[in-house]
Amino acid sequence: TTKKVLMLPGDGIGPEVMRQVQRVMDWMAKKRNVNFEITEGLIGGASIDAHNNPLTDETLADAMAADAVLLGAVGGPKWDNLPFEIKPERGLLKIRKEMGLFANLRPALVFDALVGASTLKEDIVKGLDIMILRELTGGIYFGQPRGIEERDGVRFGFNTLVYSEPEVERIARVAFDMAMKRNKRLCSVDKANVLESTVLWREVVERVAKDFPEVEVSHMYVDNASMQLVRNPKQFDVMVTTNMFGDILSDCAAMLTGSLGMLPSASLGAADENGARKALYEPVHGSAPDIAGQDIANPLATILSFAMMLRYSFDMGDDATLIETAVQNVLKGGLRTADIMQPGMAKVSTTVMGESLINE
Amino acid sequence: TTKKVLMLPGDGIGPEVMRQVQRVMDWMAKKRNVNFEITEGLIGGASIDAHNNPLTDETLADAMAADAVLLGAVGGPKWDNLPFEIKPERGLLKIRKEMGLFANLRPALVFDALVGASTLKEDIVKGLDIMILRELTGGIYFGQPRGIEERDGVRFGFNTLVYSEPEVERIARVAFDMAMKRNKRLCSVDKANVLESTVLWREVVERVAKDFPEVEVSHMYVDNASMQLVRNPKQFDVMVTTNMFGDILSDCAAMLTGSLGMLPSASLGAADENGARKALYEPVHGSAPDIAGQDIANPLATILSFAMMLRYSFDMGDDATLIETAVQNVLKGGLRTADIMQPGMAKVSTTVMGESLINE
Ligand SMILES: CC(C)[C@H](C(=O)O)[C@@H](O)C(=O)O
Ligand SMILES: CC(C)[C@H](C(=O)O)[C@@H](O)C(=O)O
Repeated sequence: TTKKVLMLPGDGIGPEVMRQVQRVMDWMAKKRNVNFEITEGLIGGASIDAHNNPLTDETLADAMAADAVLLGAVGGPKWDNLPFEIKPERGLLKIRKEMGLFANLRPALVFDALVGASTLKEDIVKGLDIMILRELTGGIYFGQPRGIEERDGVRFGFNTLVYSEPEVERIARVAFDMAMKRNKRLCSVDKANVLESTVLWREVVERVAKDFPEVEVSHMYVDNASMQLVRNPKQFDVMVTTNMFGDILSDCAAMLTGSLGMLPSASLGAADENGARKALYEPVHGSAPDIAGQDIANPLATILSFAMMLRYSFDMGDDATLIETAVQNVLKGGLRTADIMQPGMAKVSTTVMGESLINE
Repeated sequence: TTKKVLMLPGDGIGPEVMRQVQRVMDWMAKKRNVNFEITEGLIGGASIDAHNNPLTDETLADAMAADAVLLGAVGGPKWDNLPFEIKPERGLLKIRKEMGLFANLRPALVFDALVGASTLKEDIVKGLDIMILRELTGGIYFGQPRGIEERDGVRFGFNTLVYSEPEVERIARVAFDMAMKRNKRLCSVDKANVLESTVLWREVVERVAKDFPEVEVSHMYVDNASMQLVRNPKQFDVMVTTNMFGDILSDCAAMLTGSLGMLPSASLGAADENGARKALYEPVHGSAPDIAGQDIANPLATILSFAMMLRYSFDMGDDATLIETAVQNVLKGGLRTADIMQPGMAKVSTTVMGESLINE
């Protein structure tokens, strides 16, 4: 069967890291007999430049028709001063919302070879392996009403944080399923001592917990969670939280590993009657416009995002593991792109890193 | 002139750390000829137990009449299952709101003697000295409408994030004033790529910046700020942000220091015609119910909160410095409470720590 993949390289280093994924896909097509049907599209600044729109209906239609989408990165200083409504970010938020990608999986993983890259002490982060599950299509990112308005001569800016019970329930179910496949511990992060929206969140998580008696559930306030991530991140297995809290905590957790250029992510929709889910995969790092076009960016996060695609969209866990192991081995072999360079290692380009991975 | 101070020991370790402050105040009254008029009141769980109300009108009136309030800590498992409206936290939020304490100063400071207590590598945090300024009476903590409601058979939980221009302006002015007294660098943290409320925030900060041409201003998205705090916290001098983001980031920054038991905070209102501000001082740590009553809690954060009171409410900067230097010296002398204990140091009780500080 053919696997339809939409590639959205986006901006900055997006296109060059994407090229390395393409090579991995070519290799898999040849050596592992997988049939990818690849289309390419524009998103973010690249789409603004071409169509004055960060996400066209055409790209969105392609995304809806694909079995999976792989995204590079969006944004850059060139588009920073555009009005709010047509910034590159709008494209990203719109594709998440329209595709219904409510479950954002953000692993924070420390690779043994890179433990020294963390700003945290080695014993605190060695072996770290957390999965942060962020709700991605609700909460304050999308709540109505929103805007800036003048009332009685005073200007107000406002946003609405809102969650319905079914919205919380579906993300909670994904979280518990994930905990069952991992170490059966789930920490739900909220601010239930201040925000009623997260009082409801906590209530629903507790109710869903009854269906997963094997999972040990805890609840933590977001301020404490941000402390605990710094104090002792290894206390966590799976964490689940709202869109906004997840944005902050998953970036914090990613930075604990010291190697952002290594971290993939997946955004999944609801399963249809055949168990298939809409899905978008992207590296955690941004578009890094300062180093774009120099062939020095780290392609591994995007390659690992592709591995997540194999695992979650195509049920090809073995092939995903093959790639993940190759990444470990390339690092063990001493190759490093500039962002993860360490004394005594060999600094290589984006292209050489991609090549070495394929050889491995 | 008499300085009227309201002491609110609160719950857990609150009363015992407060007792050590009281001794420092007695010492100052005697040796430095300062005249404190001290009253005591209840807040949080202690007030719930006595009056079924986490903050009575009487305590609030005392707070409004005082020149400054010193708070221990509130909350504990005993009151965790109370309904949202009468939890200990309500008392804290109400006193902040009613007193108009919109500016929350949260220093994150690494004491040389304690640099090893951080989970971060020594070179990343040695000498760290950041001031986080958190807006404290607005934003999503207090925005209306809020609640949990059923609409068409589905339950929704919702909160409102709202800021008016004057609200942002007054906190921005405090931030710039503070930057002028420090290293003239201010980073304003928002999520202006997603939230209109913080588009307004950024706009107002930029406008106020024009009045402080000497201050170097930057703007950072909150997700990036949470990364940068972990990656390289020393890049920051003063940070200013919303109530919710400030809650999360200031706790993260506090944990970077590795010694929560050392960190004070101040919450200030607007200056009146005489330049006086309503003010409340409290340690950053919580009520630590697990160790309450054992005489092992660290009293230094509360003592340093008292030092902040001397500086900000009573213009007694020299006396504040006297206390801060005494704290440094006691640590250099090798004394440690359990929370900051290190090999080779002398573990002491709450009482002995207070005593040693006074001797110093
Ligand atoms: C670019 C921005 C809109 C986005 C978000 O806030 O969701 C990004 O920070 C992310 O985490 O993917
Ligand atoms: C106890 C809680 C309501 C409070 C807050 O969220 O403001 C606390 O976390 C703080 O930072 O003082």
